[in-house]
Amino acid sequence: MPYVNIRVTREGVTPEQKLQLIEGATDLLTRVLNKDPATTFVIIDEVETDNWGVARENVTTMRQRQVEKKTVR
Amino acid sequence: MPYVNIRVTREGVTPEQKLQLIEGATDLLTRVLNKDPATTFVIIDEVETDNWGVARENVTTMRQRQVEKKTVR
Amino acid sequence: MPYVNIRVTREGVTPEQKLQLIEGATDLLTRVLNKDPATTFVIIDEVETDNWGVARENVTTMRQRQVEKKTVR
Amino acid sequence: MPYVNIRVTREGVTPEQKLQLIEGATDLLTRVLNKDPATTFVIIDEVETDNWGVARENVTTMRQRQVEKKTVR
Amino acid sequence: MPYVNIRVTREGVTPEQKLQLIEGATDLLTRVLNKDPATTFVIIDEVETDNWGVARENVTTMRQRQVEKKTVR
Amino acid sequence: MPYVNIRVTREGVTPEQKLQLIEGATDLLTRVLNKDPATTFVIIDEVETDNWGVARENVTTMRQRQVEKKTVR
Repeated sequence: MPYVNIRVTREGVTPEQKLQLIEGATDLLTRVLNKDPATTFVIIDEVETDNWGVARENVTTMRQRQVEKKTVR
Repeated sequence: MPYVNIRVTREGVTPEQKLQLIEGATDLLTRVLNKDPATTFVIIDEVETDNWGVARENVTTMRQRQVEKKTVR
Repeated sequence: MPYVNIRVTREGVTPEQKLQLIEGATDLLTRVLNKDPATTFVIIDEVETDNWGVARENVTTMRQRQVEKKTVR
Repeated sequence: MPYVNIRVTREGVTPEQKLQLIEGATDLLTRVLNKDPATTFVIIDEVETDNWGVARENVTTMRQRQVEKKTVR
Repeated sequence: MPYVNIRVTREGVTPEQKLQLIEGATDLLTRVLNKDPATTFVIIDEVETDNWGVARENVTTMRQRQVEKKTVR
Repeated sequence: MPYVNIRVTREGVTPEQKLQLIEGATDLLTRVLNKDPATTFVIIDEVETDNWGVARENVTTMRQRQVEKKTVR
């Protein structure tokens, strides 16, 4: 009966990638703890980059800096 | 002071139904644990069917199969 | 497939009361949204009163004040 | 490595206010527990007012009553 | 920067198994979404079987029935 | 009506530090979003170091390496 909640930034995750996360997390619980896939829940939350902070800044700003870094040279 | 978080798939839950969930969950905490409704929070999260997995597939796929089953024959 | 998470302070909730919360929350989702009990999860988190804050104080302090109020006189 | 999840109603929180929440929560963990900002996550969830219940009603209704109160006189 | 929260019943999960869950979930996010392991959090919550309900009963009861089934004969 | 959930590793956080987290988080929401402290919840979850993973290892192992680093020499 595990419940797995995966939170990532909303940056174009495709339905196919979401399915891979669901399959992978379910298989992980089966492999490690012998849990039944039939009652394994996986819920993916996509969070706006303005709403996710790390290292005291939001991910929106972090992404802009990463882009600039690459284009500066 | 209870906090109740209800997570369901986003499949057309109406404002009236949400209110019934809020009332019902609040009443449950009052009835069983004598909690004060004034400080009982109920938060409903609606999750896209692509983002909810159970039994190693997403709910989008599960719903399609359920529809097909009914229309076959 | 709903997931219900009930968070309350750890103040002597009995196994019987927990079961009533599980039954009541499951029935609520069935009644309002016609959800299947077989895949309805209810998880109860009991939180130490030192770890729960409301109105800028912890529940430990709040409970002490409530007790004193009753015994004063 | 703290994880801070702030849930508020979706009522026009600006990117600048979100950043202040991220900075403030990160600083709080650094000040009180000496946590490293580099691995402090702050995630803000904005919840529709129909989906947030307190005192057995939703916030949508509560806000309407607050507006009426002011305009009644 | 993903955050993964795995909730399972507290039924003797070993430190080695927990590590496998941490490694597996981190690898999953790297493989599917190319996320950086350095900022991937995995948090495992172990929940008492009295506090976890599914199918309108708690896991404590469910486990007892599963044991009885095997010993009957 | 904000809900703030602070998750940290269980490493000797004192009741006084918890209170500072509660006060600080409540004040932050009041200052930035003008929220009412009376209905601001702050819940602190302390997580065992075996149960918290970052960078593909658990915090137990990370702490041991940090101690060894300091004592080497």
